Amino acid sequence: MTALALAEVGTRLALVDTPALVVVQPKLDANLQRMRTALQQFPHITLRPHLKAHKSSYFANAQAAAGVSAWCCQKLQEAEGILPKVPGMRDLLITNEIVGKRKVERLMSLVKEHHARTKITVLVDDVDNCRALNAAMANASLDDAKLHVLAEVDVGQERCGVAPGSEDLVALARVVTEECPHLHWSGIQCYQGKLQHVRNYEEKRQLVNGVAAKADASRTVLEENGFPCPIISGGGTGTFVLEAQAGVHNECQPGSYVFMDVDYSKNLDQSGQLTTDFEHSLFVHTTIMSKPTATRLVVDAGMKAVSLDSGPPIVVALHDDGSFTSCAEEVAWDARGRGKSVVGDTLQLIPGHCDPTVNLYDQYVVIADGVVTALPPIEGRGPGV
Amino acid sequence: MTALALAEVGTRLALVDTPALVVVQPKLDANLQRMRTALQQFPHITLRPHLKAHKSSYFANAQAAAGVSAWCCQKLQEAEGILPKVPGMRDLLITNEIVGKRKVERLMSLVKEHHARTKITVLVDDVDNCRALNAAMANASLDDAKLHVLAEVDVGQERCGVAPGSEDLVALARVVTEECPHLHWSGIQCYQGKLQHVRNYEEKRQLVNGVAAKADASRTVLEENGFPCPIISGGGTGTFVLEAQAGVHNECQPGSYVFMDVDYSKNLDQSGQLTTDFEHSLFVHTTIMSKPTATRLVVDAGMKAVSLDSGPPIVVALHDDGSFTSCAEEVAWDARGRGKSVVGDTLQLIPGHCDPTVNLYDQYVVIADGVVTALPPIEGRGPGV
Repeated sequence: MTALALAEVGTRLALVDTPALVVVQPKLDANLQRMRTALQQFPHITLRPHLKAHKSSYFANAQAAAGVSAWCCQKLQEAEGILPKVPGMRDLLITNEIVGKRKVERLMSLVKEHHARTKITVLVDDVDNCRALNAAMANASLDDAKLHVLAEVDVGQERCGVAPGSEDLVALARVVTEECPHLHWSGIQCYQGKLQHVRNYEEKRQLVNGVAAKADASRTVLEENGFPCPIISGGGTGTFVLEAQAGVHNECQPGSYVFMDVDYSKNLDQSGQLTTDFEHSLFVHTTIMSKPTATRLVVDAGMKAVSLDSGPPIVVALHDDGSFTSCAEEVAWDARGRGKSVVGDTLQLIPGHCDPTVNLYDQYVVIADGVVTALPPIEGRGPGV
Repeated sequence: MTALALAEVGTRLALVDTPALVVVQPKLDANLQRMRTALQQFPHITLRPHLKAHKSSYFANAQAAAGVSAWCCQKLQEAEGILPKVPGMRDLLITNEIVGKRKVERLMSLVKEHHARTKITVLVDDVDNCRALNAAMANASLDDAKLHVLAEVDVGQERCGVAPGSEDLVALARVVTEECPHLHWSGIQCYQGKLQHVRNYEEKRQLVNGVAAKADASRTVLEENGFPCPIISGGGTGTFVLEAQAGVHNECQPGSYVFMDVDYSKNLDQSGQLTTDFEHSLFVHTTIMSKPTATRLVVDAGMKAVSLDSGPPIVVALHDDGSFTSCAEEVAWDARGRGKSVVGDTLQLIPGHCDPTVNLYDQYVVIADGVVTALPPIEGRGPGV
């Protein structure tokens, strides 16, 4: 038995099976152009968008069409699934340490397959891991191909990474350059994820300046010890303009700007207003499956359909022209001037957090003018690193 | 390029790629036997385990081997993926309302394919939905095949369902029996999920007795109006003994007993001790990918690998003999008498909540005596209803 498809190209949104992960293509395209415009005033910054937001070759190719040539991703699985399907992907940074026998074997397969076309870089924060990566590269017999590495510096995230400006950082540079001929020392990653959702703009600016100071101290200690630091990567959708203004980073890694989610839309701009830098382009399309009381509607989108880690979604009604009506109550609504909703009606949710919501689905439903235009797979979905 | 597999049959656990969703088969088998023993004192109760916990034909077949013949599931996708692969599945209840054009079409395909072998039942709480299901059945031209329905009664869950003992319940029975010749009225579902994790046993007993009273009132009003109520279904891993003792329900729907999770293991038994009714058989196998400080270890299992909705996982070290060492700190450990752990070592997590954790994976890694014995797919994974 084959299950029916969610939809076909040409299906109207109201007839798409639910729950479905819907992207409104004109809104996404607008976000890609807004990013391009935002970065025009910072010619020293390379845009390296993060694949972990959309996890798909379809939207990576859309980014390539908007001028992007360098990306980053969080998981080997994202790289394995997406890189072969994006001809314009000349440069890919995996923003994680790659550890463990099978993981390193997978990385070697990726380098072997793609090094002629694509520069592949990984993060390191442990000298023994550097030596293991070098040995694996030697064993892979790839002639003069090198695996590029950035040292991860912990600039406040308190996850992986060496301390800013530390001897551990210098030790990493020394081991890579002096002991690891199959690795190429490329610089540092200084990303502080916790700052992405600081609401107050001035407070965030000061905190980002603190990150930039730690990045600067790290570059300084490297250069004083005779090691170059050509790349200083970091920054996300909530902070990249501030890192660009601080003048230390030369790459930014925004991911969520393509979709936006409820949490990002709560950030305030310089004048204290809600940010409008990017538009919501991602929705979970749902059906009202029960109306047990006059004030309670139940939709077919629970924890398996929308991630709740950054709070609940916002309920909206998406119109064919791409505009939407916001609904006051979380699950009770009376929108579109059509009187009370009934069992079987559809509505849309804006996810609280886009990355883990996308990770629940195997497929996007892309629409324009209220009609399905594509059903691309989400190649990077999965639990892994 | 093909990514390397997580493992092969015969791989030792320490060499399985991470993160991986590991099931210790002897522990799972023990849980199946413990359930069998627990229900022997309640001959009036049919065990109808919930597929939403494991979402796989592999473990449904293990349940069949332990004497189970009736199951329930939460999503059409679970039914579509699992039913064809479990020969012993003669009876399947979908514990949800099925609403929307494509959903109903999918349900009809399922009935068409399997009605000769399997009794299929769905929940209803809306008379118009009953009429729509009846019309779809008529349209499917299945001769005398019937779709079985249970009315969902809201016994405190505050999600779907009609009020206990209400006129709405009688109206559902009347519409089904008098207007819907292709539906078969089968009784009621009275499930109160919120009680599964009430810690205090005596408090929980009183709350379950309240649920049983609402179920009893619902049966009474049906019978007084001339409608039978042969099935009264409900109850989960945290409450099924109490519902059985209350004497109103005649089916129980436990799911998590096969795996157990951290949240269930916090329930207290009659003497105020932590429950030991079932064992933890499900683990997320991880690698230490970074050790940035002496007290911080970072593993490769984040929000995409373990659901945090019921709190964080417990870190353990699983030994080849199936025993484990519990680790005091959340991410810092020093176990197995091997001194301090280093980057590249593996450890295991017991998930806070098993159902949404399983939903993140496409495959189980089943082990016994520390070696992989099977790599079954998770056919029911997905966002949908």
